[in-house]
Amino acid sequence: MIIIMHPEATPYEIDNVVAEVEAKGWQTHISRDSGQTIIGLQGNGQPIDPFFLGQMPGVEDTMAITQKFKLGSRAFRPEDTTFTIGEVTVGGQQLAVIAGPCSVESREQLLETAHAVKEAGATFLRGGAYKPRTSPYSFQGLGEKGLELLAEAREATGLPVVTEVMSPTKVALVAVYADVLQIGARNMQNYDLLNAVGRAQKPVLLKRGMSATLEDLLMAAEYILSHGNNQVMLCERGIRTFDNKYTRNTFDVNAIPLLKELTHLPVIADPSHGVGVRRHVPPVALAGIAAGADGLIIETHPDPDHAASDGAQSLTLEQFARLMEQVRAMAQAVDRTV
Amino acid sequence: MIIIMHPEATPYEIDNVVAEVEAKGWQTHISRDSGQTIIGLQGNGQPIDPFFLGQMPGVEDTMAITQKFKLGSRAFRPEDTTFTIGEVTVGGQQLAVIAGPCSVESREQLLETAHAVKEAGATFLRGGAYKPRTSPYSFQGLGEKGLELLAEAREATGLPVVTEVMSPTKVALVAVYADVLQIGARNMQNYDLLNAVGRAQKPVLLKRGMSATLEDLLMAAEYILSHGNNQVMLCERGIRTFDNKYTRNTFDVNAIPLLKELTHLPVIADPSHGVGVRRHVPPVALAGIAAGADGLIIETHPDPDHAASDGAQSLTLEQFARLMEQVRAMAQAVDRTV
Amino acid sequence: MIIIMHPEATPYEIDNVVAEVEAKGWQTHISRDSGQTIIGLQGNGQPIDPFFLGQMPGVEDTMAITQKFKLGSRAFRPEDTTFTIGEVTVGGQQLAVIAGPCSVESREQLLETAHAVKEAGATFLRGGAYKPRTSPYSFQGLGEKGLELLAEAREATGLPVVTEVMSPTKVALVAVYADVLQIGARNMQNYDLLNAVGRAQKPVLLKRGMSATLEDLLMAAEYILSHGNNQVMLCERGIRTFDNKYTRNTFDVNAIPLLKELTHLPVIADPSHGVGVRRHVPPVALAGIAAGADGLIIETHPDPDHAASDGAQSLTLEQFARLMEQVRAMAQAVDRTV
Amino acid sequence: MIIIMHPEATPYEIDNVVAEVEAKGWQTHISRDSGQTIIGLQGNGQPIDPFFLGQMPGVEDTMAITQKFKLGSRAFRPEDTTFTIGEVTVGGQQLAVIAGPCSVESREQLLETAHAVKEAGATFLRGGAYKPRTSPYSFQGLGEKGLELLAEAREATGLPVVTEVMSPTKVALVAVYADVLQIGARNMQNYDLLNAVGRAQKPVLLKRGMSATLEDLLMAAEYILSHGNNQVMLCERGIRTFDNKYTRNTFDVNAIPLLKELTHLPVIADPSHGVGVRRHVPPVALAGIAAGADGLIIETHPDPDHAASDGAQSLTLEQFARLMEQVRAMAQAVDRTV
Repeated sequence: MIIIMHPEATPYEIDNVVAEVEAKGWQTHISRDSGQTIIGLQGNGQPIDPFFLGQMPGVEDTMAITQKFKLGSRAFRPEDTTFTIGEVTVGGQQLAVIAGPCSVESREQLLETAHAVKEAGATFLRGGAYKPRTSPYSFQGLGEKGLELLAEAREATGLPVVTEVMSPTKVALVAVYADVLQIGARNMQNYDLLNAVGRAQKPVLLKRGMSATLEDLLMAAEYILSHGNNQVMLCERGIRTFDNKYTRNTFDVNAIPLLKELTHLPVIADPSHGVGVRRHVPPVALAGIAAGADGLIIETHPDPDHAASDGAQSLTLEQFARLMEQVRAMAQAVDRTV
Repeated sequence: MIIIMHPEATPYEIDNVVAEVEAKGWQTHISRDSGQTIIGLQGNGQPIDPFFLGQMPGVEDTMAITQKFKLGSRAFRPEDTTFTIGEVTVGGQQLAVIAGPCSVESREQLLETAHAVKEAGATFLRGGAYKPRTSPYSFQGLGEKGLELLAEAREATGLPVVTEVMSPTKVALVAVYADVLQIGARNMQNYDLLNAVGRAQKPVLLKRGMSATLEDLLMAAEYILSHGNNQVMLCERGIRTFDNKYTRNTFDVNAIPLLKELTHLPVIADPSHGVGVRRHVPPVALAGIAAGADGLIIETHPDPDHAASDGAQSLTLEQFARLMEQVRAMAQAVDRTV
Repeated sequence: MIIIMHPEATPYEIDNVVAEVEAKGWQTHISRDSGQTIIGLQGNGQPIDPFFLGQMPGVEDTMAITQKFKLGSRAFRPEDTTFTIGEVTVGGQQLAVIAGPCSVESREQLLETAHAVKEAGATFLRGGAYKPRTSPYSFQGLGEKGLELLAEAREATGLPVVTEVMSPTKVALVAVYADVLQIGARNMQNYDLLNAVGRAQKPVLLKRGMSATLEDLLMAAEYILSHGNNQVMLCERGIRTFDNKYTRNTFDVNAIPLLKELTHLPVIADPSHGVGVRRHVPPVALAGIAAGADGLIIETHPDPDHAASDGAQSLTLEQFARLMEQVRAMAQAVDRTV
Repeated sequence: MIIIMHPEATPYEIDNVVAEVEAKGWQTHISRDSGQTIIGLQGNGQPIDPFFLGQMPGVEDTMAITQKFKLGSRAFRPEDTTFTIGEVTVGGQQLAVIAGPCSVESREQLLETAHAVKEAGATFLRGGAYKPRTSPYSFQGLGEKGLELLAEAREATGLPVVTEVMSPTKVALVAVYADVLQIGARNMQNYDLLNAVGRAQKPVLLKRGMSATLEDLLMAAEYILSHGNNQVMLCERGIRTFDNKYTRNTFDVNAIPLLKELTHLPVIADPSHGVGVRRHVPPVALAGIAAGADGLIIETHPDPDHAASDGAQSLTLEQFARLMEQVRAMAQAVDRTV
């Protein structure tokens, strides 16, 4: 059960409600959402009469939410969550298009890419400064130097910056430079990191783990939401299945309408990781839009064959520009804009 | 290696080529394709000089095909295979739309559905007379009575009929009534059945097994093709993954551009089984078209909540009509027609 | 619900019970088990009072079985099913050990193997005469000639023969030669074939499909059991997962204690397909026994590197003999005999 | 390629070798192993003549290691790695048995469990003070208070303590109390955490991620090993597959012989998470030993039905004692001791 307090409920009223439910054997979890205090009940206490609770001073509403995820559920908030970053509103009529290289490699590479994707119609710039690599012997990213280059590219193009943070100790630093903090698939259940980005009150792009169920993803989002940080985009980026002869992952297109039904949060499709093969990225991107995604994240590189990471799945700048034309036609077919 | 003989090669010339390669320790597999004899080499013989072979009387061309699937590969036939059933051409510009109930239940149910899907724009009628059911205690289909009703519905609407055949002993019977023989997912590697429909020389809709790799699917098609039956449509219908809390299967949208690249055969998307939940069928159908499918197969029923099978994933007749409008918009976005 | 009639119930009494439940809107499914008639209820009729039914003449007992699988469930038969083939009892204290080549290739190959595995302690001879192959261009087995060789090897060694049947039209022929009819993983849901081996009243080895759930496997067994054929062994042979870099399949060792709990039927472990790599077959075989399997099926070949099929996972005759020594030590540790 | 320097190689000699290979366009990665400096080559430089390198002062040996994992590979160290914690040697003839509750809940619960598992034959005590939970609303562990209780239980029983660390910022604290640092499945690719425990130079128990390939697991270990920390145990704890109706995970028994072949590091089986159902933990534990595991980790609780976490898969103290008797019989069958 979740108890929503009036926006003008006093601390005294809040304490009273907490005391009432704790006296019935429940623990409470308190968060703030859009200026209202939310009291969540946890554990296994005695039954509580929602009518009685609803009469207590300061209580606006109570909800029995049977799903494990509470703040992210449509039961908690039926209408779509939207939020504005720079000049772009995510989760509304307009599709978000996040493009850029897997890794920031150099000033030239980044600026060339940023200008090109801006021109083609992208609304965000992506680029990795800290790279989670399977091998300790692979390129691990430029670190803070990469963050500085991203900030410079934002100045030059006006595109807000999306970049990954891998460790709770780095959240404060990355938040200085980035507009959106990305949580990578491997860190989807790194709970200390989720708590840290939750507290940072910055927009978050949360990627689904490669074998995470949709419920796992929504529970991971719940860690962020429970700090009162509602600016969370969920990202489908492909799952692990038995068939990987021709692709890197299996893009789970079903996840898109399912997430749109289960949660009010925006949903972004990542066809680059979702299929992992450059020439198949465009059809999978279009399929993501057709299925109802609120945006795309696409790896793009001036010279993919010499990229420091993920070259096989990165589009050239020309391919990205051509894809954007198809995305525009597709957006029209599903009543969206780019 | 595959040796393609001239259309006018004589039996004597064919025998000579066979003798030549068998003398080098190879077995041969002979099939006919579009009026030409194809000699496939199998086993591990001594190296053969393709130049020398190409000089033999009656030989038009030789090809080294490294993939395990030969006749289905783009190496063997680069251009898309198209074929016409009734008045509809499959594999070309126009999308095939196959609609109808999971099971044929009654004359009324089938005719009402057939007229409605025809009106909405479907180009084929589907319906099961023989049903492969997980439980021996479930409804197993009307059998030959169902086939008769399908034929009657074709007379009434002009829609060619797609229906499943489950056993080699029934192929001749089903081929009397059906325009397209469907091989179900559970029978994708029932090789006696594949050989039987190969010999039947009727169009085949081959569904991917629920954990079949794309290579498995293409090898299954090869069984049919090796009898000289080239009218094979491949069907992506969802695979088994770890996440089945909210869906029946995971629709593998990546498979569509991959199959279009690997093979010249038409590819049909089955969003009904692919997601398994009625209200999510339309976005997954649209995603299939966006990704490049040559058509759709959609379960449709006048009263899905009382269907004998697969009710949870069947569209109502109204939902199907509404989906067809969206399919038309989508087709335009990807330069196809309906 | 299942109604068990007295062994001496008359046809008249049986008809009366059937009429009673059909009058309530149920369909009935009648089978014979150990000399008793079993009436299964299917569909959605009105509630039936089990007490009232139990008072009808000829009724011994009624059972509400909530699982989808009925005749295979422990609810239906709590004690382990055992049955004797030749001189070996399957499902009891003694482990069944089925060994032999993947394919029957020649008289010499088969007899050498049969004598060697007999000497090492095997209790059954396996060998494929009809081979389901992924590629139509691969060796498809010797057919009836292979069956004759298997019968000859049984004469020579006294080992009962296990061999695969792939098509309903071949069941009668294979049943002439074989002691146990094997249903391969690809045919686990080939229902016409399951019905055919059910009617054949011969022992059956039913292999789990490569992505079949345990419930799917038990439902497939139900097809056989519903013909009154109770001599069914279930076989765990590895499933498809995301990790196939170093192995062919993932042996699902959990399935063994689970199946032993869910069903009264014997459970056989197939480590050859379960791991698919010769040198890892012995540890996986031992793990199967440790987990509670009632037996093993092991591919064995005099010269695996030149086998016509499955050479990579076949043990040499020496390796098999060495494994049998380890199996004996393992059997003792879990209170079984070999 | 890896270059192993003599134990008495001078810094000057090491620098010379580094300069030589960097001049050819390689980056170098330097670590210390058993008193020897190891120089790893990364990137794509020009070919290097191993004979020439082997002649340089201070070089003991060079190795071309084609696998992605280097320091963990059998190519790098053919013989089994063993290390001693307290009085127990891991990776040798004796099996390690790690037992205790999922979460440390109270002084009484922990001490009762510790004494009981010690008496039954366990050689390590496990217990979680920091718990990674899918839901932010679930019990998150006692934190440092839990660590203090673990240290007290070690004093009382002599059992070394295994406990999880979830964040790089907590490694120093946990290392004060624990004998073995556990990395949980969800954190297997939390690279900052892997680097932190690598630097801590304490023994590590690294659990396989729920959809990690064996190569992923070995690459994660490589992060730890590359800091010169060789005391790493790998833990198979079940993977995610399509079948989860009756179990929590699929214990990948194949992984045990495969890992023993690929790496010199000890391999521990976790049947508690591997199957996730209390009554099936013992057969899966025995299967792990039969397949060649170097030890077990088993969740054990005085009152599992009221455990704060993982109760459904925890053994009672009596069940654990009974399992240990079976483990002793099993150990004997595979020539190990307990």
